[in-house]
Parts: sequence; structure tokens; C-alpha cells
Amino acid sequence: MNILYDERVDGPLPSVDKPALLAALREALPDLDILHRSEDLKPYECDGLSAYRTLPLLVALPERLEQVQALLRLCHQRGVPVVARGAGTGLSGGALPLSQGILLVMARFNRILEVNPQGRFARVQPGVRNLAISQAAAPHGLYYAPDPSSQIACSIGGNVAENAGGVHCLKYGLTVHNLLKVEILTVEGERLTLGSDALDSPGFDLLALFTGSEGMLGIVTEVTVKLLPRPQVARVLLASFANVEHAGRAVADIIAAGIIPAGLEMMDNLAIRAAEAFIHAGYPVDAAAILLCELDGVEADVHDDCARVDAVLRQAGAREVRLACDEAERVRFWAGRKNAFPAVGRISPDYYCMDGTIPRRELPRVLAGISQLSETYGLRVANVFHAGDGNMHPLILFDANLPGELERAEALGGRILELCVAVGGSITGEHGVGREKINQMCAQFNSDEITLFHAVKAAFDPRGLLNPGKNIPTLQRCAEFGALHVHHGQLPFPDLERF
Amino acid sequence: MNILYDERVDGPLPSVDKPALLAALREALPDLDILHRSEDLKPYECDGLSAYRTLPLLVALPERLEQVQALLRLCHQRGVPVVARGAGTGLSGGALPLSQGILLVMARFNRILEVNPQGRFARVQPGVRNLAISQAAAPHGLYYAPDPSSQIACSIGGNVAENAGGVHCLKYGLTVHNLLKVEILTVEGERLTLGSDALDSPGFDLLALFTGSEGMLGIVTEVTVKLLPRPQVARVLLASFANVEHAGRAVADIIAAGIIPAGLEMMDNLAIRAAEAFIHAGYPVDAAAILLCELDGVEADVHDDCARVDAVLRQAGAREVRLACDEAERVRFWAGRKNAFPAVGRISPDYYCMDGTIPRRELPRVLAGISQLSETYGLRVANVFHAGDGNMHPLILFDANLPGELERAEALGGRILELCVAVGGSITGEHGVGREKINQMCAQFNSDEITLFHAVKAAFDPRGLLNPGKNIPTLQRCAEFGALHVHHGQLPFPDLERF
Repeated sequence: MNILYDERVDGPLPSVDKPALLAALREALPDLDILHRSEDLKPYECDGLSAYRTLPLLVALPERLEQVQALLRLCHQRGVPVVARGAGTGLSGGALPLSQGILLVMARFNRILEVNPQGRFARVQPGVRNLAISQAAAPHGLYYAPDPSSQIACSIGGNVAENAGGVHCLKYGLTVHNLLKVEILTVEGERLTLGSDALDSPGFDLLALFTGSEGMLGIVTEVTVKLLPRPQVARVLLASFANVEHAGRAVADIIAAGIIPAGLEMMDNLAIRAAEAFIHAGYPVDAAAILLCELDGVEADVHDDCARVDAVLRQAGAREVRLACDEAERVRFWAGRKNAFPAVGRISPDYYCMDGTIPRRELPRVLAGISQLSETYGLRVANVFHAGDGNMHPLILFDANLPGELERAEALGGRILELCVAVGGSITGEHGVGREKINQMCAQFNSDEITLFHAVKAAFDPRGLLNPGKNIPTLQRCAEFGALHVHHGQLPFPDLERF
Repeated sequence: MNILYDERVDGPLPSVDKPALLAALREALPDLDILHRSEDLKPYECDGLSAYRTLPLLVALPERLEQVQALLRLCHQRGVPVVARGAGTGLSGGALPLSQGILLVMARFNRILEVNPQGRFARVQPGVRNLAISQAAAPHGLYYAPDPSSQIACSIGGNVAENAGGVHCLKYGLTVHNLLKVEILTVEGERLTLGSDALDSPGFDLLALFTGSEGMLGIVTEVTVKLLPRPQVARVLLASFANVEHAGRAVADIIAAGIIPAGLEMMDNLAIRAAEAFIHAGYPVDAAAILLCELDGVEADVHDDCARVDAVLRQAGAREVRLACDEAERVRFWAGRKNAFPAVGRISPDYYCMDGTIPRRELPRVLAGISQLSETYGLRVANVFHAGDGNMHPLILFDANLPGELERAEALGGRILELCVAVGGSITGEHGVGREKINQMCAQFNSDEITLFHAVKAAFDPRGLLNPGKNIPTLQRCAEFGALHVHHGQLPFPDLERF
């Protein structure tokens, strides 16, 4: 995958005099850890999307706010681009370094500053791991709801940058819905507070604007997250279906019944078999699709809801519905789902994880479309996804050692995302655009909209020094990439009618 | 209340040649309804905040998108400011006209374009009334959740502009949480789509940025809202308390128990008595405070939750808890609350409705502070509010015919908002900043933050023609207004420690 920063389409990046910059940094910040030798830079050449790699010019590992502030001021003065990075678990290349830029690693800001059980919030530094927040809140019976698969490793600053999701988003929302405020540093090193301790904030909603902005508007230095009371009980139902359409309809029926499951996940046969072989979760390997539906809350409510969901599932054509009989089985059911990606990794030398969102009602059509595209491109696709909120994660299986397969996988991925856009969906659910999906942004938005994105970016960062080349494509790139614009389904995806 | 557009602090507005503008509009748009005589303009001189009045230069009443587009282009060309207005029910003067600007009334865009029960959304024009959406969705068992008190009259375009709330926000969120996408026209008449039919959209979250931006970033021309299944049952508990602190603690305890009521409202004694005298809702007139707690969902869950909330309320010190025995009583309980504002209007010649949000845990302290400020200023204050989300609506009672009372009410209101900011809260919950709270914005934000707001505004509207003088104060205004900045409680409210 070779769409790294391309000066021809993305505009020239200033070429930086590395020794001079290093000397200036050392003089201004003698106690700042800076990596500059290529063997030290190597571990930072990619994030969780390992197919894209660039060696950063320098890596800075600050520990104090003042260091970040001084670093930003110095870079701003010299016109040096800065890419912020948390734990580097992102899947869309949002933290991919620039050869002519500094990689600002925020991992050492790893202190939990306050857990306030009365106010039900935690105030933490950006390098704190997602799961560590819930662990710190656990003694108070509280937790932080968004739970990306990488929650054991990913940091909350990165979660804010990518507006991370997880299997429980359906009920509890994305990162943006679970924040009270963030402290940021602007590109010029100014400290700003976005949001407030109250549930609403006047003026423009800069907290929501900032969340998911992928490091292009500022650097997160502190995050205040909402904490929720841990549900008394959680139960999981596993339903198996003889065909995928029935499973899709069951999803719609559950939502239509007014039930909001804590999680509602779908896996297709290829994913089921891979996960079962790896985790032995007890999945029915002959099912065309399974649904995992988690219900949480107080005992009596969950008991009643389980019965209702069971009835809806059977009505929708489930051939079997199993309620996890104890907590061990519940954890096992989820383990299969949560390990679906590595499980697929075991049956294929390489896989490429996509992340598109579609209106829920389009599930059957899009699944049919993916299956047809999979045949056309001669590559298998396993489907594992957050069915409840229409957030799909097709996994494209390929072998990078076979000539042309990687390019074919990339092309197929692009086609799948365009299909999502064509049915009124979007090219990302929770992984962000980053570097990976920058071309598909041209399919999602028209040039007026992209121009507006750039204007908003310029309001925060007029010289474009924060994470350039990610998230928002240049108009040149869209022109180069071709007339792909299918804006919210207004222009049909060429093959859409066939699905 | 006299803080109308002030050229000295807000910058000069271009003086407009009215006959020339009228002639140009008539030539470009011969079939556009335009009001220009002062007797025709009079009904538009204020919105729901009737203490502020200005006669607009002209009122335009377009019926078609192309008319709005052409009008905007013409105004942009000539540098004429445009203030958009929906139903004019806003309580913060957001739709207050400008003497040198056009009032763009969107009320005739009142068509429901689509109700899609499968996709659970409705696509409507901006002038459609909030309640009309739920009425159109009712045959499908669906409804639109946000329910401002004005829902019978207010329009969805205005709801988007102000990010309107309602008594059910605690469970179902504000307007921004119930939107899928909006179509807008920019100040230059360009059509843009913000958001998508899917639950997430890539790039910066311009939909959230736009929601609540009070007509400063663009004109809403179409809104796609989410629809929810109507809950099977809703029950209301009424709890009475001998003191306000116990009621405040009960709110915290209910939330801490992991229950999310559909609504959780508090009224103090003055409000209770006013409402009871007006509506005969059956409120205990000797209670220091009452809580109304609505639980909704499926029969069995609601039954169990009612029992749990009942226990929590008694534990917190409620001296009586009553479950509305039938639907008629439930509606009566709510009628008292929903008519609290007009009820207070019956016991005082005038009242001034505030709208601040505070962290829930600060409720007792802020109520004590308001009571003390009320004494200091010699004006009664009735408290009616969305206790569950910390959104307060103190009603300041005064008599505009007594010299100095109006000014004292305004000053007291300002102090209450500053108190909200000082405890980490915000100067608005759901009414917006508009014209009313523009000075208090200087207490909420520092100059860097206000500068950033202006930069974001400029990204959409570089010449500042859309609703100038609202929502975001100029730095001159903040300087003029004095050094009131108490940024997120960092500088203490002078009297805070006494409460």
C-alpha cells in the first residue's frame, strides 16, 4: 500500500535541516528525550496499520506539559510538521510519521489525575490506557464505557483523536459521547479547554469538532471522561442463522422492538470458523451467520429483555438461540468475537481490516455486494461487525507475497468503502480516515465540503503543520484520484442495482 | 434589557440603503414575499425573549430553496447581514433582528419530506414544528425524542440552531444526539450536507459543530432526524421533600443506582405553589421541593425500576412518594411542571427565565447560592429544572414597572450564570447564548478560546454576515464588560465559599 505522503498531490512539505533542528531542540529543551538514530526511529515507523511505513525525522518523548508547549512553539517558528502519537494502535495510519516531521509521542503522560465518584468522572493524561481508566474506577463500581478491541493497549488521547468506538457503542456511544472536556495545546503552544464539567457548553461545540480530528487541530494534554456505574448483570445470547439475510433482519427487529442491547454483533461463516478454530468459543461452525446480543442492567430487567430478544430472534428465523449459561460462557462467547481479527490472521497470511458504516437497513444489500465484489477480485472476505449500529469490519484475506495481491486487496477495500458511501453510509465507523482512507474521502464529500474542512483546519492551524496529509484530502488529491464523488448515494455506485 | 447590537463594542455594521436593497431583491426575486413597512415588521421585532426588541430592516418569507439561495447571494454581494428565524420561540434572543439586516423567516419550509420507519428517520424542512414530526411518525409507533417546552410551536430548524433540549434529554440526549444529517446553505448560497444517513461520518464533525451554532455558520434547509420507538409504558413518581438538599441528594442517588430516568425534574416551593395554583396538578404545596421522576420502557422493566426508585427516594429522605396511579394523573403531574413558567407569570408581573448547567453534585451549593443572591438583590427566584442533567432554570420574578427592577433582575441573572461557571458549569443548557448571554460568554471563556470561536466562524462566514453580534462576543465586548473571566471555576466566584 503505497499512498504515503505524496508531495505531488498533497503539496510540498518543507525540507527540514535535521542536525540544526536537533541542536535547536537540545538547546531549548535539554531534558527532553529525543530519538534521532534510524535504529531508534524504526519502532515508530508505523502504527497499527503496518502496511504503511515511514521513518520519522525525529521522535520526541516529552514528560511534562511545558516540554510539549516549548516543542510546539519551536516547530511552529521553524515551520516543522508535528504528528502526535498515543499508543500507536490506530488502524488507519493516523499516527503515520512524516520523513520531514517530528513524531510527538505522548505515551509518557500516563497519570490518572483524579477519579471522582460523586461527579462520576475521571481526569487523566492522554497516555493513560483505555482499560486503565476502568480499572481505576472499578473500586467505586464505575467504568469508562467505550471499549475498542485494543483497549488493553490504546491510550485515551488516541481514542479522542480517532473518536474510538467498541462493541458497546450501540448503547453507550462513541468516545465523543463519553467526554466532558479536553485540555489541548494549539499548534502555537496555547492552552485551551474544550467542553466543561457540566453536560453542555455554550458557543460552538469545539469538543465534538476536536474529537475524531486525528491530531490535525491540536494536541490533547488532558482528558476528562464520564464514568458509568457498572451494570449489575450482563447476559449474552448467541443466535445462529442459516442465511445472512435473516440475521440482518433480526438485527432490525431487535432495534425496532425498542430494545437497546449493550452490544449486537454479527459474524459470517468464514469469521465464525476462523474464530472457533482459534478460541473454541462454542460457535456453530455450520451457521451462515451468528449474532451475539448482550443485554445489561439490573437483574430483573435483563431477565425480561433476554426473553424478549429470544422471541424476536426465533421469529426472525434463528435456527438456534443460546443464552450463555454462566459468566464463563459469556466471556467465551465474547472472546471469539474479540479475537476474530487475529483468528482470521491464522487462516490467511495477511488480512486487511476495513471499517465502513451503513444505514442498518442496507445490511443485506451491502453483504450481497461485498460477496459479489469478493468474487470479482478473487479474494475472500470475512465479515465481523457491530451490526447494531451498522458499523462493518470486512476483513479482506490476501497474501502479500503473491504478486499483485496486496494491490488487489487495497482496490477491493476501496470498492467496499465506495459501496458504503453509495448506500448512504460512510467510509469510517470508528477507525478514522488517517492515511488509509484519504482517497475515499473524495468519494464521501464534494469539493465545497472539502474546502470547508480545510477552512476549519486553518482556523486552528493556519500553516497546516499538525499531521498534514491525513484525514482531509487536498483538492489536488481528489482530482488526481478521479471523479469518484458519489456524495451520499446521489450518484449510484455503478453496480449497486445488481445487489 | 438593553444590550442590543452595540456598534461601539461589536464593531460597525454596514449601513444599508433600504430602498435600493428592496428594489434589488424585487428585481432578482419577483415572487419572494418581502415585508418592509414598519407595521408589517413589528411582529418580528423579537423572539421568545420579548425584553429585547429591534425592528428588522426587511423580512423575507421564502418558500423555495432557490429563493433562499438567491437571497443569500445577493446579501453576500452587498454585504447585508442576515438573521435566520424559525418559529421565533427561542428564549435567548438568538433570532433578534438587526436594524440593518434582513430577517430570513424559514417558517414556510414546513413540509415533512419523508418518514422512513425501516430506517427510523424523518427528513423534514426546517420550518416543520417539533411536535409535528412525532405526530407524523406516530402511525409507525415512532417519535422524535427532544421535547422543548415549546414543542407545539417551535420549529426543527430553530431546534438545530439552538441545540434544543427538553425534559427527556437525560435519557435521550439533546438535538445534536438525535440528528443524522442537515442540509445547509452557506453564506454564499452553496449547498452542503453535514452528517450522513449512517451513524458516523468521517472528517471533522461539522454536524455537531453546526448544531447549536445559532445561525452563525449557515442556514438549515433540511433536517434528517432519528426516530425512536415509542416506549410501551411511562410512569411518573412524585416525591416530596422537607428540604432542598435532600431532594438534590436523591437526584444523585438515583443516577448512582444506574437508573436512567426518562426525565428527572425538580421544583422548589415557590414554583410548586405557583404551578399548583394554576394547574391543580396535585402537588404538595408545603413541600420544600418535589422531584418528578419518569421511567419508560417495557412494562416489566418499568415496574421494577419504579420500585427501585421509590426505595432510593425514601432512603434519601423523601417524606412522601406517589406513583401516578393512571395515565391521567401522569399527564397532570407533567402538566404542572410544563406550565411552571406561565404559572410563575401569574404570581409576578414579569419573570426572567435563566438557563445554566452545573455539575450535578453542585446542586445543593448552587441552590443555596441562588437563595442568597435572591435576598441580596431583593427579588424572588423560583427554581424549576432538569435536575438529572444539572440544567437549571431559575425564574427571577420582578416588576418591570417598578423603576430599577428590570435592571436588577438582569444583574441578578448575570450573577447566577457566573455562579454556574464558577462551580465548573456553563451559562447555557438548552436555550443558547443568543443576545441574552453574550456578556456571560466572557466569564465562560478566555480570550484565546473566543479568538478560536471567531476563527471557526470565519471558516464558514469570513465577512461575518450571518447573525452578527450573537453567541460569540467580540474581544472588545469582553474588555468592555470587565474582567469577568472565571474560566471553568479556576478563579473563584467572589462569594462562592460562603454558600
